[in-house]
Amino acid sequence: MIIPPYELRHKIHENPELSLEEYQTTELLEKTIKEAATFYNVDINVYKPLKTGLIVEYNGGSGEEYLLFRADIDALNIKEKTKVDFKSKNEYMHACGHDVHTAILYGFFLNVIKNKVNKNIVFLFQPAEESKGGAQRVIESGILDKYNIKAAFALHVNDEFPVGTIASTRGTLFASALEFFVDFEGVSSHLAFPHQSKNALNALRIFLDVLDKLPKNPMEPFVIGVGKVNAGSAINILPGNSHVEGSIRGVNSENNLKYFEDMRNVLSGIKIMTGVDYLLGKGSFYPEVTNDSLLYDKFIPKLSKTFTFIDCGLKMTGEDFGFISKKYPSLMCWLGSSKGEHHGLHNPEFLPPDEVIDVGIQVFETFLD
Amino acid sequence: MIIPPYELRHKIHENPELSLEEYQTTELLEKTIKEAATFYNVDINVYKPLKTGLIVEYNGGSGEEYLLFRADIDALNIKEKTKVDFKSKNEYMHACGHDVHTAILYGFFLNVIKNKVNKNIVFLFQPAEESKGGAQRVIESGILDKYNIKAAFALHVNDEFPVGTIASTRGTLFASALEFFVDFEGVSSHLAFPHQSKNALNALRIFLDVLDKLPKNPMEPFVIGVGKVNAGSAINILPGNSHVEGSIRGVNSENNLKYFEDMRNVLSGIKIMTGVDYLLGKGSFYPEVTNDSLLYDKFIPKLSKTFTFIDCGLKMTGEDFGFISKKYPSLMCWLGSSKGEHHGLHNPEFLPPDEVIDVGIQVFETFLD
Repeated sequence: MIIPPYELRHKIHENPELSLEEYQTTELLEKTIKEAATFYNVDINVYKPLKTGLIVEYNGGSGEEYLLFRADIDALNIKEKTKVDFKSKNEYMHACGHDVHTAILYGFFLNVIKNKVNKNIVFLFQPAEESKGGAQRVIESGILDKYNIKAAFALHVNDEFPVGTIASTRGTLFASALEFFVDFEGVSSHLAFPHQSKNALNALRIFLDVLDKLPKNPMEPFVIGVGKVNAGSAINILPGNSHVEGSIRGVNSENNLKYFEDMRNVLSGIKIMTGVDYLLGKGSFYPEVTNDSLLYDKFIPKLSKTFTFIDCGLKMTGEDFGFISKKYPSLMCWLGSSKGEHHGLHNPEFLPPDEVIDVGIQVFETFLD
Repeated sequence: MIIPPYELRHKIHENPELSLEEYQTTELLEKTIKEAATFYNVDINVYKPLKTGLIVEYNGGSGEEYLLFRADIDALNIKEKTKVDFKSKNEYMHACGHDVHTAILYGFFLNVIKNKVNKNIVFLFQPAEESKGGAQRVIESGILDKYNIKAAFALHVNDEFPVGTIASTRGTLFASALEFFVDFEGVSSHLAFPHQSKNALNALRIFLDVLDKLPKNPMEPFVIGVGKVNAGSAINILPGNSHVEGSIRGVNSENNLKYFEDMRNVLSGIKIMTGVDYLLGKGSFYPEVTNDSLLYDKFIPKLSKTFTFIDCGLKMTGEDFGFISKKYPSLMCWLGSSKGEHHGLHNPEFLPPDEVIDVGIQVFETFLD
């Protein structure tokens, strides 16, 4: 018996798993996909280059070229606040719609094998999109290198747009994001003797001030944001240690890396000025998601015939599909999921309706042309 | 049997107790003092206006006037690193020499009752100097109001000066210190959408910048110091909340309070600019310790005959003897305790030699003239 896509979505939604912990999700997918292939009497190859996630290889075409379709499968550390009957049974939540993405890719796979589509396709059920760089890990595993991938596609639900609306943009759709950490190490002193300190809070303040003042190209969307700051441990002791973390976001990952190197210069200068030493660390890095112009010009007009299309421009958020779009000509679209509500991604009430799955499958099928 | 001052010091040093927890220290003092009074057949009154600490009233004089001598009795949350045989047996330490102060006041008391000194004296064994405002609590208990206190005296050991050296200054000896806390409450946002935030870290940064720029009298020692800063909880979320704490120190408590009110104006301005709300809190407050000119001019020349005297000027640290010096003509001196070493107060190796107790007793006796 074949599980329908809606039912698969409900099962996954009920049992959300965090990045690189998607064991049960992977097991469910593998079992369901293999049963469907057996049912339709289609040969597929299933690979698991990482401990979670899987790659399904379908060889329906005559040539050497492959299309890659990707869904992310991980959930978030958010406690669900919806009242749906397939609500999460644990402390985590599919609050970013990856349950829907997974069901779309699964439903699309079912149609492909049922209709014996005349193409070679790699279905990538990717783990760890939210953190831990799943796409990068899949690429680094080398598994994709055996395919001559001509184009890669991905979708993301979004309740900023109504159901039936597709949004994307020419060029960069998601920003490149580069996390940074700085630990300052100075010398603490009693607050009464500031001249005996090498004040790590002051070094941190200078650092943030200089970051604000680094020259930036006004034509290029760019933001340096600070998420966390800590300094000192007692009210009457000037901090000998401080910590700051944040991320650099822009349309161009090379520029982000350049800014990261500029930070090193800023910190060297601060060390000379203040005597406060530093440790600059790099956290996770997502390249920008860039839509290939040829794919965009080929498919967006087609999509526009069936769906409402919105050119939504760039988002400053990140997506690890960027690793794939850096390597292969790619096209990614937002899939409208609102029936009137607008909670936003990562919100404990975010819940796309099941019917978005059908829209997603239809969009993926358009990309087969 | 009367316990000698050195032995009392060792017992107290072995069993240090934190501010307002000096139960065993108080019990030991009360027992020892009462036994000594019985031994010398002298009437004294012992009062305990707070749960810890005690006041010993000795009426040897004919008039109504009293002299007050004060020792602080509490220890610090510091793990002792000395190798002395009366080393602390718990996790705390007399790292600020209050064990020595207590032994000095006790030894002085013994001499007073042995010699039937012809003065009325209040011996104040004060709890909670390090924190929790012990001196203020004693004053607020009203116990001192029944005495016509003509002068108050206190000593503090210090290994910045050698044994046999006394240091003090005309005017202000310790700064006034006023602790402040600010909680900023704004609105967090994803780092990609800073325009949707009311950034509590930025409000905090503006606050610190403006504090640095408030006009200050260059002739008056003054410092605003920040001991702790916290902001945000996730690397990719702009902080909706932040916290800063520190203290204002200067020679004049009225000016400190004025600066505290200036902070309120700064914060109001920041709220208008940024939309970030704030809660400004006042922590512990120590008035400055000011030496009375008449007492200084009377006793310092006398001390200078027996000891090396150094005019050490003002320290920016605080001392809650300030509450007493605000109320009564007072004189406080540093008591040199170094035999060559210099660890500094609140250092886990700070350990004045026993002989400083004899010097302290001699200094207190000088103040009887």
